[in-house]
Amino acid sequence: MPTHDMTAARGEPDPAATDECMIDDELISELGADIVTRSADIDPRYFTAYNEAPGPRPRALVRPRSVDDVSRTLALCMRLGQPVVPQGGLTGLARGAFALEGEIVLSMERFTGIESIDVSAGTITVRAGTPLQTVQEAAEAAGFTFGVDLGARGSCQIGGAIATNAGGTRAIRFGMMREQVLGLEAVLADGTVVSSMSRMLKNNTGYDLKQLFIGSEGTLGIITRAVLRLRPKLAAPATAMCRVADYATVVRLWERMRAVPEVVSFEAMWPSFYRYVGSHTPDVLAPFAGEEGFAVLIEYATSAPGCDATETLEACLADSFEAGLIDDAALATSQRQARDMWLLREGLAIDALPNLVNFDVSLPTGELGTFAERCEAALQARWPGIVSLFFGHIGDGNVHIGVSLVELNNTLADELDRTVYAVVQEMGGSISAEHGIGVLKRPYLSCTRSDAEISLMRRLKAALDPKHILNPGKVL
Amino acid sequence: MPTHDMTAARGEPDPAATDECMIDDELISELGADIVTRSADIDPRYFTAYNEAPGPRPRALVRPRSVDDVSRTLALCMRLGQPVVPQGGLTGLARGAFALEGEIVLSMERFTGIESIDVSAGTITVRAGTPLQTVQEAAEAAGFTFGVDLGARGSCQIGGAIATNAGGTRAIRFGMMREQVLGLEAVLADGTVVSSMSRMLKNNTGYDLKQLFIGSEGTLGIITRAVLRLRPKLAAPATAMCRVADYATVVRLWERMRAVPEVVSFEAMWPSFYRYVGSHTPDVLAPFAGEEGFAVLIEYATSAPGCDATETLEACLADSFEAGLIDDAALATSQRQARDMWLLREGLAIDALPNLVNFDVSLPTGELGTFAERCEAALQARWPGIVSLFFGHIGDGNVHIGVSLVELNNTLADELDRTVYAVVQEMGGSISAEHGIGVLKRPYLSCTRSDAEISLMRRLKAALDPKHILNPGKVL
Repeated sequence: MPTHDMTAARGEPDPAATDECMIDDELISELGADIVTRSADIDPRYFTAYNEAPGPRPRALVRPRSVDDVSRTLALCMRLGQPVVPQGGLTGLARGAFALEGEIVLSMERFTGIESIDVSAGTITVRAGTPLQTVQEAAEAAGFTFGVDLGARGSCQIGGAIATNAGGTRAIRFGMMREQVLGLEAVLADGTVVSSMSRMLKNNTGYDLKQLFIGSEGTLGIITRAVLRLRPKLAAPATAMCRVADYATVVRLWERMRAVPEVVSFEAMWPSFYRYVGSHTPDVLAPFAGEEGFAVLIEYATSAPGCDATETLEACLADSFEAGLIDDAALATSQRQARDMWLLREGLAIDALPNLVNFDVSLPTGELGTFAERCEAALQARWPGIVSLFFGHIGDGNVHIGVSLVELNNTLADELDRTVYAVVQEMGGSISAEHGIGVLKRPYLSCTRSDAEISLMRRLKAALDPKHILNPGKVL
Repeated sequence: MPTHDMTAARGEPDPAATDECMIDDELISELGADIVTRSADIDPRYFTAYNEAPGPRPRALVRPRSVDDVSRTLALCMRLGQPVVPQGGLTGLARGAFALEGEIVLSMERFTGIESIDVSAGTITVRAGTPLQTVQEAAEAAGFTFGVDLGARGSCQIGGAIATNAGGTRAIRFGMMREQVLGLEAVLADGTVVSSMSRMLKNNTGYDLKQLFIGSEGTLGIITRAVLRLRPKLAAPATAMCRVADYATVVRLWERMRAVPEVVSFEAMWPSFYRYVGSHTPDVLAPFAGEEGFAVLIEYATSAPGCDATETLEACLADSFEAGLIDDAALATSQRQARDMWLLREGLAIDALPNLVNFDVSLPTGELGTFAERCEAALQARWPGIVSLFFGHIGDGNVHIGVSLVELNNTLADELDRTVYAVVQEMGGSISAEHGIGVLKRPYLSCTRSDAEISLMRRLKAALDPKHILNPGKVL
């Protein structure tokens, strides 16, 4: 069994790993040279996170072409005690899909494609390596909309999106990935294929095993295929940006807008975030000056035949204006304008801030205003003048925070994490709304989960992966 | 440790159980006489299923007033190896909440009530013993609608509805119970309280433990409290009954109606079902003669301000009529008429059929027509002239079947089950859409779940309940 340092984060290949060649050979002999790439030949993209230096070079890269390939890989790794990291599109932000020292990578990129679409039931059957956007486009072509959308749609894979229970901007309407999954197939640590490819919305026959694999970041099994729920096709959306006086009024606006069943997105930008992106997003003219107040992006899209989305959203906004909830509103009159509003909200501009650290937390919607105040105060108390920008999908309680420190090293990064998570913990929130735990948030899991919960998670992990070969060092 | 016969179904108290008094005494000494009722004093309703002879008398009845009472009960039972059946409102149809020989009953009826409502986040925190209708009424009073509704609303308890992942008539719009649960608290077999009372829609911090307890029928833990999602308040619904030529057209009508985001229910009645209930439901005038074709009940309800539900549904129906999908339609013009349509659909009239056996299966929506034909053919082949009536929530693939045999005994009942489930299995459907497995469907679990799935279920059961004290003999 190879030496496996669960605490190792990054570094060069472990020179002490004398059996490295053996792993390559064993894998090639089991799966063939087409499926397995030797350590020295692995392209750095398989071990380099976005905007980071390369991590440890994996011992081997396995790129299965079938479920059976996945099964045989795991059966072999189980026998040898060889840890495996399943890899999707590598768009996660918690570094959950990168190898730690001495691990092999199992990339699902070749097991890809739509297997079938059932129009009457409204389901699509897909392979894990299929990019989200391919699923969205296949759904559209068949007269449907897929319920999850997020910025990384072109690169992220459906298997990774399920393994991390991805959220995105439409969760208030359609839920997260978990709510899209009707059936799932996964391979257990010992290579057993557990196929629960139900195509029904209702199926109460014993334990709902798919739930084990959704959101557990590849630590309990490797997802190979899924049956996903499709939604009736949405016509072109209407998009608007509103100026709102304060967070309490943002909440009142949300309480009113959520009653409109076709509101797809409700995204809030705190004043300092809006000011920053408004003046730093190239080629985008912010719809109104952001000197004061919050900006709220609202998207409305309906599948109802014959409904004019723009007219409906306009009426909703007029109504909210009358009620004194909105100070100003801009309704996009072109796709370009709508795209610009989204560019502001996506806030890629803040990536240019020095030493940016991103947070992704959740609290009950009504408490996010107080949270932001307390969090900012705690940061200012420790680092006077620190830049912290708040924005997010507040309808589902999720806020993102971009924090920029003048100076950053591992000790300061840890102190920054602890400062933010202490406020989250004190207010009973969650330290990861949609990005998962991975490696980066693992030290802070106990800020959100109790000893009893973590102990039960460990019990599940031990039951499903007794040799700890599935993505060890992640989550737990 | 008491002798526990996992295969025992019904009968008188086991005279061989010499330590019966000891269990009573141990429980009373741990919890007090207020919480524990001795075997001889237990009211028969705690061990008598609807329309059945009394089952075995439990060794004791525990009615906790707190989470701590539940915890201490389980810790003691774990120590003594004493099996426990958690009990809600006893409205389940798979006999999952009744004691087998030698068990004690833990009824949640005293741990009841709404703990809080968060209007901004749209959540309600409730105790397991709270009746569904109480939750619905509290939601309405706070300006919301609860997403699940079903016939037993007045008696069934929220804990039982979660433990069985109840479905009902609004699943096409809001999902089953699983999709309503944001946070959950449960007590493990050893008495550990695992509290995951998240109030956020998005929370990806490690394994989603609540999923273990939802739908596992009390075999992995006992649910004590929950945070449930609320939906914007729906205005009064509009209800209509349509006559549709055949099942293929019912599916086309469904494909059209599901695009209207506020359709809450879409219920189909096969011709023979509609004929039967139309002529056997007292005081109800069927909206049209059911000589031919299917009857479809459609309910539309919206939270959108200023929308006239009846007008909208009428327009949808006119549109479907134009498209040739509907032969005739009746729009309810009073609450009484709407209630009558639901009375027909609920079909209590069929309870009067001799030796009625109910089935609750699911298949992809488009395949239910073929399924009904094959199922009826298989039944007629074995029992010429047999009455089998099909109806259900076809939008989510769920169909119920009422079968009436001239003669019924255990052997024939088993043969009947096998006849129906063989067709379900052959077509890749599920033998329990919403009623769960309990005791009644346990012998047939393998019709729907593979060996690998059942083996994984057993692994979970062993990890969470190694002494098999939690509702043994149910599900697995």
